[in-house]
Amino acid sequence: MSKLEFFFALVLAFTTLHMVTAGDADITSDFLVPPNVTKVDSNFFTSTSMRTLLKANPPTTFKVTKASLAEFPALNGRSVSFAVLQYPAGSVNPPHTHPHSAELLFLLDGALEVGFVDTTNKLFTQTLQADDMFVLPKGLVHYQFNCDVKNSAIAISAFGSANAGTISVPTTVFTTGIDNGILAKSFNTNIATIQAIKAGLTPKA
Amino acid sequence: MSKLEFFFALVLAFTTLHMVTAGDADITSDFLVPPNVTKVDSNFFTSTSMRTLLKANPPTTFKVTKASLAEFPALNGRSVSFAVLQYPAGSVNPPHTHPHSAELLFLLDGALEVGFVDTTNKLFTQTLQADDMFVLPKGLVHYQFNCDVKNSAIAISAFGSANAGTISVPTTVFTTGIDNGILAKSFNTNIATIQAIKAGLTPKA
Amino acid sequence: MSKLEFFFALVLAFTTLHMVTAGDADITSDFLVPPNVTKVDSNFFTSTSMRTLLKANPPTTFKVTKASLAEFPALNGRSVSFAVLQYPAGSVNPPHTHPHSAELLFLLDGALEVGFVDTTNKLFTQTLQADDMFVLPKGLVHYQFNCDVKNSAIAISAFGSANAGTISVPTTVFTTGIDNGILAKSFNTNIATIQAIKAGLTPKA
Amino acid sequence: MSKLEFFFALVLAFTTLHMVTAGDADITSDFLVPPNVTKVDSNFFTSTSMRTLLKANPPTTFKVTKASLAEFPALNGRSVSFAVLQYPAGSVNPPHTHPHSAELLFLLDGALEVGFVDTTNKLFTQTLQADDMFVLPKGLVHYQFNCDVKNSAIAISAFGSANAGTISVPTTVFTTGIDNGILAKSFNTNIATIQAIKAGLTPKA
Amino acid sequence: MSKLEFFFALVLAFTTLHMVTAGDADITSDFLVPPNVTKVDSNFFTSTSMRTLLKANPPTTFKVTKASLAEFPALNGRSVSFAVLQYPAGSVNPPHTHPHSAELLFLLDGALEVGFVDTTNKLFTQTLQADDMFVLPKGLVHYQFNCDVKNSAIAISAFGSANAGTISVPTTVFTTGIDNGILAKSFNTNIATIQAIKAGLTPKA
Amino acid sequence: MSKLEFFFALVLAFTTLHMVTAGDADITSDFLVPPNVTKVDSNFFTSTSMRTLLKANPPTTFKVTKASLAEFPALNGRSVSFAVLQYPAGSVNPPHTHPHSAELLFLLDGALEVGFVDTTNKLFTQTLQADDMFVLPKGLVHYQFNCDVKNSAIAISAFGSANAGTISVPTTVFTTGIDNGILAKSFNTNIATIQAIKAGLTPKA
Repeated sequence: MSKLEFFFALVLAFTTLHMVTAGDADITSDFLVPPNVTKVDSNFFTSTSMRTLLKANPPTTFKVTKASLAEFPALNGRSVSFAVLQYPAGSVNPPHTHPHSAELLFLLDGALEVGFVDTTNKLFTQTLQADDMFVLPKGLVHYQFNCDVKNSAIAISAFGSANAGTISVPTTVFTTGIDNGILAKSFNTNIATIQAIKAGLTPKA
Repeated sequence: MSKLEFFFALVLAFTTLHMVTAGDADITSDFLVPPNVTKVDSNFFTSTSMRTLLKANPPTTFKVTKASLAEFPALNGRSVSFAVLQYPAGSVNPPHTHPHSAELLFLLDGALEVGFVDTTNKLFTQTLQADDMFVLPKGLVHYQFNCDVKNSAIAISAFGSANAGTISVPTTVFTTGIDNGILAKSFNTNIATIQAIKAGLTPKA
Repeated sequence: MSKLEFFFALVLAFTTLHMVTAGDADITSDFLVPPNVTKVDSNFFTSTSMRTLLKANPPTTFKVTKASLAEFPALNGRSVSFAVLQYPAGSVNPPHTHPHSAELLFLLDGALEVGFVDTTNKLFTQTLQADDMFVLPKGLVHYQFNCDVKNSAIAISAFGSANAGTISVPTTVFTTGIDNGILAKSFNTNIATIQAIKAGLTPKA
Repeated sequence: MSKLEFFFALVLAFTTLHMVTAGDADITSDFLVPPNVTKVDSNFFTSTSMRTLLKANPPTTFKVTKASLAEFPALNGRSVSFAVLQYPAGSVNPPHTHPHSAELLFLLDGALEVGFVDTTNKLFTQTLQADDMFVLPKGLVHYQFNCDVKNSAIAISAFGSANAGTISVPTTVFTTGIDNGILAKSFNTNIATIQAIKAGLTPKA
Repeated sequence: MSKLEFFFALVLAFTTLHMVTAGDADITSDFLVPPNVTKVDSNFFTSTSMRTLLKANPPTTFKVTKASLAEFPALNGRSVSFAVLQYPAGSVNPPHTHPHSAELLFLLDGALEVGFVDTTNKLFTQTLQADDMFVLPKGLVHYQFNCDVKNSAIAISAFGSANAGTISVPTTVFTTGIDNGILAKSFNTNIATIQAIKAGLTPKA
Repeated sequence: MSKLEFFFALVLAFTTLHMVTAGDADITSDFLVPPNVTKVDSNFFTSTSMRTLLKANPPTTFKVTKASLAEFPALNGRSVSFAVLQYPAGSVNPPHTHPHSAELLFLLDGALEVGFVDTTNKLFTQTLQADDMFVLPKGLVHYQFNCDVKNSAIAISAFGSANAGTISVPTTVFTTGIDNGILAKSFNTNIATIQAIKAGLTPKA
């Protein structure tokens, strides 16, 4: 390693090391009891909401089942949560971000193509086998695709927040009523194309 | 306010108050000097990069000029930065997110339609006059549109981070090489429509 | 809910809500590259270290396999990590603490008795079935016991830190050379009993 | 750069990099609604409190107009706020500190002498032109002076906190009733001088 | 220092510097008043709970007197607290951890053997004289022993948290009802030995 | 307590509870070794710098002896430090702030008048006896005065930061070269008075 490389590494240390932000706040009391919970016993710390999920038949479309703050109140102040992701053959988890946490995906079964885009617009993709893990950085746009045309896949993702949050790009941008003209200018296209995109994403009556 | 409302407010206090995360790390030393800076004097804390920008002729397309960590190293560890936003008549700042900070926009001149989408997919829009301020929450997708067909607009935005980051939805999703088939499934449309969107966003050779 | 209960809840809100501390620091740059990594591509974000682990024959004694910062450098600044826990029939994961994170245990297969002790010395125990989850608060002493005499059990635990840390009570207190007299006074017992405990925990030559 | 300088830089990295503290806590829910707000719509995120301020005639004495948590409740948990600073010709913003945030000052119009003192008692001063920016580190004593004897100046300052706080040195030390004898000993002067200082700062009846 | 050592130090900087977590949350308002306090004056910030403690006769067994959040409500959000530790001749403060803060012990009088065990199971011990200080890292198991057979010792410890918490190993593991069989397996001993340990720690009826 | 008071308390909870900021960053590794330390043993965690200080004759002027990061490197990442404060009869610790931590003062011997000013310019004063404690909030201006004309006083202060920092008002404002004219305008007095103050604070040649 040359002096120049040393210097470069040191500069990186100075300029990037400080750019940190803390994760979720953790509680320092033993527990934080929601006011509608009158008895704090072992059941408060237990969730049975995933029972039978992993061994059940796969769903017909991509499905995510969360165990986050909303579903499991004992996660309040614990800075951790789970989601189980079920991918039928050929299905996609569309581009989205988690504003409050990175995601660590563990592929329990099947094969999965994962991808994310960094802030310099570089795309990173990988094809995972069963038991492989993949890191999806906080706030970056990512997606998964079950590239197997015959078999379903199933993954469990851990988050370093009790409430990682999810912002789906297709839904957020094209189903919330943002004006067609603004979207056409934003995507440098015509209004007809925007209307075509919106039509596919609008739930049928 | 009824007892029920009290109770509801209290529940909210319990369930939402803890969901906090800290902003940028701040330095507690007086300053953090990059290794390529040999002399720390007043000039280190001064930036002249915006000089003449506010009084110059407006640009022909939407333009953002940042004073963040990359442009102004003395912001390291200060948890604050600026951007000046120039909107020619009718121009758009396309949907994007800032992963590391909320944005507080101050409209210096002109008129501006601003909008953001919350995590329940509700769209909030507002039309601002000169000297109005608007809060854009951290991590949520937002855009601005100069709805005036004749006059340009100019705004200065403050961020509670030296490096708020920007992820543009059109660029990130449609210009980084994500497979057409995956995008077609994600947006529930056909590949031709995806190709049409991509075409408009690809820089001309 | 009476006024008194309201008041009590409010007091709790005031006295406990502030007792928070943040989790791991997260990076706000896209990635933090260790100096010995020369190329950051998708493989940097992928770990194959758990391949075949879940489907392999169970070990003969309790075994933990971690995917934390030390094993998976891309977790640096991500505030999340995994551990796979394998329990042969009747085996125990002895009392221990994780100083840097709560643990969210997901029982993939088998049955498991879990327990932790809060700071008022109250013991919480639960018997989990497959797909059940249990929260183990940060810093508190906890253990698990595979109460099934015939079948092994397997769990995956998520942590809200890239480096949760583990402090095993038997090892820390009885195998590190703390003086027998000090331990005898600490446990209000005689030196012979301390020696008996130490003998069982000392690795055979 | 010599090895010694390398070593020194590295030592600095070790000894100063850890001395960080996080900024304001940010909310991770979409918004935090004060209990007296019954409807959360776009108006909640909008402030019109600065309207006409920038284009109005300058005040006759130095004046600060804040848009912080107290004036703009939607800033709660956003870690950012604004202040508009108006300096008539020759006026001073007296020495003060902001305990909760650094300040990033943007001089919109006029000329301004700014200064701050670091913890080694070194004074840093600078004369700014319109559109220049200056960083005032968190917690350090600083002041501004409109050195132009004819023209007023106006600046907008951003803070990386919704509630940066202000502690004015003259007011805090000399108008709050601290005993004359204690102040005389503190400033190593006589009581008459302390009384003279106090007299000038006491509001006329 | 060789290039290799430089490199090693730099690697350490990268791999360890980010593994930080923030301390207690601090309040940024001037004070946080508990709801049962109706008047905030100087008495709120004063505690007289230690009066006469330091000059009184030493107790007959080891005794800790805390001034933490529970005893001194004004410490809420201040990230600091005290404990006074009184050691009769030959007494022990048994192995314990503080989950929320490091401890900085100042030996006011007497002699004291202190020890802690790091996460690699290395034991660090030291014998302190009066006015010596010793750092006990957050979350690690530590103990103190007054090795003087004739004289008592007294120390004052500072914590970087208003609520450092204490988890005593003997009490937590052996007096809270954890099943004898689980403990016997955990300590690789027989049930009789576990029963002997429990007997000594059980309060006499 | 009336409904109105409830409501008021709840409003306070909402508006003040979020205004928190974290303390010093703590390390989560066992220790952070400065590069010039080659051996980490018990001595690294021990400081003997205060030996004989408490029992020595009092100094002739007010004196503070710190055990902070600069004096005791093992405090790095521990978020706690000490200072010993020695007050000869009638002496003053002049008005100052600690930008990075609250202070918890423990009066070991003597009598002491303490005071601080909050951000609404309200002065809080108290006279302490031996063994009394007093909280001095982070960032607020405070002072101490040994009101006993015959006896010295001694205190030990704990900080929730390894580097609390000190900014002395007299020194910072009047000995660092801030222009007399700016100071005269700031304190609404004449230049002669500023010169008188400066003269008393300037070290004699």
